[in-house]
Amino acid sequence: MTRNRAHQKPVPGEERVLQLMRRALNPRSLKTAALGFRVAIGDDAAIWQPGPGYQTVLTCDWFLQGTHFLSDRHPPDAVGWKCLARAVSDLAAMGAQPRCFLLSLALPTSRTGAWLKEFLSGLRAASQKLRCHAVGGDTTRRDDVLINITVVGECRRGRAVLRSGAQPGDAIFVSGRLGEAEYGRQLLRAASRHPNARDTRLRKHLYPEPRLAVGAWLAKNRLATAMMDLSDGLSSDLAKLCEASRVGASINKLALPHVNIEEERAIKFDATDLALHGGDDYELLFTVAKKNVTRIPKALGRVALTPIGEITSQQRVVLVDQRGASRLIQDKGWDPFR
Amino acid sequence: MTRNRAHQKPVPGEERVLQLMRRALNPRSLKTAALGFRVAIGDDAAIWQPGPGYQTVLTCDWFLQGTHFLSDRHPPDAVGWKCLARAVSDLAAMGAQPRCFLLSLALPTSRTGAWLKEFLSGLRAASQKLRCHAVGGDTTRRDDVLINITVVGECRRGRAVLRSGAQPGDAIFVSGRLGEAEYGRQLLRAASRHPNARDTRLRKHLYPEPRLAVGAWLAKNRLATAMMDLSDGLSSDLAKLCEASRVGASINKLALPHVNIEEERAIKFDATDLALHGGDDYELLFTVAKKNVTRIPKALGRVALTPIGEITSQQRVVLVDQRGASRLIQDKGWDPFR
Repeated sequence: MTRNRAHQKPVPGEERVLQLMRRALNPRSLKTAALGFRVAIGDDAAIWQPGPGYQTVLTCDWFLQGTHFLSDRHPPDAVGWKCLARAVSDLAAMGAQPRCFLLSLALPTSRTGAWLKEFLSGLRAASQKLRCHAVGGDTTRRDDVLINITVVGECRRGRAVLRSGAQPGDAIFVSGRLGEAEYGRQLLRAASRHPNARDTRLRKHLYPEPRLAVGAWLAKNRLATAMMDLSDGLSSDLAKLCEASRVGASINKLALPHVNIEEERAIKFDATDLALHGGDDYELLFTVAKKNVTRIPKALGRVALTPIGEITSQQRVVLVDQRGASRLIQDKGWDPFR
Repeated sequence: MTRNRAHQKPVPGEERVLQLMRRALNPRSLKTAALGFRVAIGDDAAIWQPGPGYQTVLTCDWFLQGTHFLSDRHPPDAVGWKCLARAVSDLAAMGAQPRCFLLSLALPTSRTGAWLKEFLSGLRAASQKLRCHAVGGDTTRRDDVLINITVVGECRRGRAVLRSGAQPGDAIFVSGRLGEAEYGRQLLRAASRHPNARDTRLRKHLYPEPRLAVGAWLAKNRLATAMMDLSDGLSSDLAKLCEASRVGASINKLALPHVNIEEERAIKFDATDLALHGGDDYELLFTVAKKNVTRIPKALGRVALTPIGEITSQQRVVLVDQRGASRLIQDKGWDPFR
């Protein structure tokens, strides 16, 4: 029904927002049939089918103004990139590949112009880089920008890596460097109102890259006994992995791959504390049976894989320093209700 | 890791919220394996597989305090029931059956006690009634209660009913009565601070029931050429169906199944206006080829199925009154950006 032409009235607000979204994200220009979709944005629901021999993997994630990002500090395209990247990270942590997503977006009318366009540009960039395409969503008006993303992916039947498979004696690995995102967040907070989004020290905080290739390689080769992504910080997330596996862990302080912050004297941070408690890194934490440790390379692509300790049967998590002294690691990661 | 026992510290906030959610919703007590799940609440992502010959259908829906419900008017268990029921309605509109859902919940610490328990009790009731079980989600703290629900369901391959299949000459049907939910909403607004949730006139606004059986019956028998659910109001939603099908519609004013509000003189409403523009009914709007119209019963179970007009080739939507005079129906349904 050409209601707009018939009445010569302006396009109603929601329709305009949806038009912008379709233009930026609509996967119909891609070979959607090959990806298993039948219906794209616009119907009541999306239809999805994984490849033969594959299972569907589902996750969802909040990304809220004031809680997860600040409107005066975070460039809109970084908000668009990060809301998808962090949700996709949950699939990387299962060894799964993302395929499509649903975007729930609430925003004030004042953000339906330039802000929305930049946001969609960052979201489209992440969507293309991560090969994860928009298939639906829900839009409404709100004083703050509220985002919720559901990501749908697939993994070979029975190959998903859970949190619950770690055994005493397994080696504990992490990908990348820990604490980089929290370091960037602190720099951003200390900076002037308009940060330079190209500052490489801010990159991991603004444009995190989920470790899809690492997760998929580990799952394919059945090398990880347990895996999760580091979103709340090592001290919180390792505790969750240990709880799910009913084990403990001993972490070697000197082995932690951390940020080099010597040149940043203005920020009084301890690199080990950043590595232990800083959230938002979206690196992978995984465990490997002793017999397979030599099969883990030092890096996969440009992502370092570092052994940082060992799973123990005592149900507690300790940090061992250079002198061999050990102390309990307190869970000081991100907990919104604390 | 038994971090709580080791330190004798109280359970951290998020863990307590998650414990309540698991206790109320965890599907592990049900025969989850039979439903296709492998992982329930607690891992990075949920794993799902539809039955052989079935496709996965996905949808998501906002339900926000202040926008979709009011904290001083809506009982917490109605918030829990409705947030799931309205999302499931999108699957009813495809002729699909719901199977599982992801719950994204943001709430203030003050609501993590009695409010959360009542909310979860309503959500559990809907989950059991609609046979749609929690498999994951995301929780955070926020000043207002924010809810986003993703529902996953399944339908026989190729049998989903889209919005785009209506043809000129098709009859237009609706299920149930239109305007009831908006009528209840107006009564609720006009009532004292604590409404009687058992008032039957409020029932459809507080505890809507998605028309799953009607949608599935129509899909199974291939009787609906197009279908969608009525969430924004007939005037908005019929326009969307016509746009998707590139057709128009002629609605018979006298045929509209509407609320009987004669006894409610306090509220100055026109029953036809309520039926045309009232949102939140979650009834089904569907079209049927002329040759199949006699196969549509007057009611399915206790849900009336009423022919209200005809699809036309002229791309506009008109209302024809008892004298045969027709006028364009203005799209006055719910548009958050208007």
